[in-house]
Amino acid sequence: MQIAEPLAVAIDELSKLPGIGRKTAQRLALHLLKKNDDDVRNLLKAIQDLKSKLRFCERCFNLSEDILCNICKNHKRESSLLCVVEEASDVIAIEKTNEYNGIYHVLGGVLSPLSGVNPDSLKIKELVKRFNKEEINEVILALNPDTEGETTSLYLAKLLKPLNIKISRIARGLPIGGDLEFADDATIGRALLNRSIL
Amino acid sequence: MQIAEPLAVAIDELSKLPGIGRKTAQRLALHLLKKNDDDVRNLLKAIQDLKSKLRFCERCFNLSEDILCNICKNHKRESSLLCVVEEASDVIAIEKTNEYNGIYHVLGGVLSPLSGVNPDSLKIKELVKRFNKEEINEVILALNPDTEGETTSLYLAKLLKPLNIKISRIARGLPIGGDLEFADDATIGRALLNRSIL
Repeated sequence: MQIAEPLAVAIDELSKLPGIGRKTAQRLALHLLKKNDDDVRNLLKAIQDLKSKLRFCERCFNLSEDILCNICKNHKRESSLLCVVEEASDVIAIEKTNEYNGIYHVLGGVLSPLSGVNPDSLKIKELVKRFNKEEINEVILALNPDTEGETTSLYLAKLLKPLNIKISRIARGLPIGGDLEFADDATIGRALLNRSIL
Repeated sequence: MQIAEPLAVAIDELSKLPGIGRKTAQRLALHLLKKNDDDVRNLLKAIQDLKSKLRFCERCFNLSEDILCNICKNHKRESSLLCVVEEASDVIAIEKTNEYNGIYHVLGGVLSPLSGVNPDSLKIKELVKRFNKEEINEVILALNPDTEGETTSLYLAKLLKPLNIKISRIARGLPIGGDLEFADDATIGRALLNRSIL
C-alpha cells in the first residue's frame, strides 16, 4: 500500500497507545490532519507538560506539580485518616466520589512475586515511616479486590498491626446497579458475609 | 476534585479526539506518564510531522509528501483508470484491498446543499480539467452509498457524460460475511437488482 510516510508513522505511533487499534489510529491521524494548527499544538503541549511538569508527591507519591501534591497541601483534609491505594489513578477514582476527605499513600503497584514485585519495589518502607512522623489514627486499605491486591492488603495489615492503629479495608459486595443473577459466586459470597444490619 | 493541573489539561485535550471519552483520555494520559521519554517524543514528533510534512497531491488531492503523491508518481499504475473518492481515507481503504491498480481523484467531500457544500467547494473543476490533460478511459465513482454520496455520483455522471468516457460505480450489495436476515431492505433490494449471472 502506497500510503504517505508521515501518515504511516503517525498511525504506527498512535496504535501503540492502549486500546487504540490500527483503525482507530488511522481515524485519529486523519482527524489531527484536518484540525487547525492551534488545536494540535495545544494537544502536543499538554502531552509535553504531562511529562515535564508532573512528578511524585514526596509525602504520598501521588502525581504532583510541586514537592507536595494538592491533597497533601490542603489543610482542610483530615490528616489522621490515610487511604492506601495502588496507583495515582485510584486517587482520582476515589476523589471523584466526594466521599473521602482524608489523605493518601500511593504504593505504586501491588506485591507480585511472579512479576518480581517485592515489598522493596513498592513505597511500603515510606508508608511505615509516615506513621512515625505523622499522627495517623486510621488506615483504609483500598487496593483492588484481586489476588494480588488481597495479598498486599494482608501483608500490609500484618506489617501495620504492631503500630496499634485502626486498619480497615474497603467493602467488597455487589456493585450499585448490579444484578444478583449475573454476579459471580465470590462476590455474592462476600456480600452475604459482609451483610450490614439495618 | 484536586487533580494535578497538567494531568487535567492533558485529559481535556485527549478527550477532544474523536471516539475518546474522558475515561479513555485519563487512561491514555496515565499511560503516557509511565512511558519513557523517547516513546513519548516519537509520538509527539509523528503528530508534528503529520501536520508539517503532509500536503495535498497537486494532481489527485490525495495526501502527499511531495507535489505528486506516491500513487501519481508510480509509473506502474494504470493512468487510464481513474477512481473518484470522497476523502484520502477512502484511498487508503481501497489501496488495502490490493484489487485496484489505477489512479485516484479525491473530491474532499460530497455535495450537501444543507451544509453549504456545493460543486465549487469540492475538487470537481479540477476533476474535469484532468480529462482534458490526461488520457483517461474509465472513471469509477467510489463514493459512499449514502444519500449525499449517491447525489454526488449522479451529479458527476451527468457532468462527465458529454466526455464519452466509460463511467462506472462500485457495486452495492450484501457485504462479505453479511447475513440476509440482518441486512436492511434497501441493501437486499439492491443486491437482488444487481444480481450477477453465474
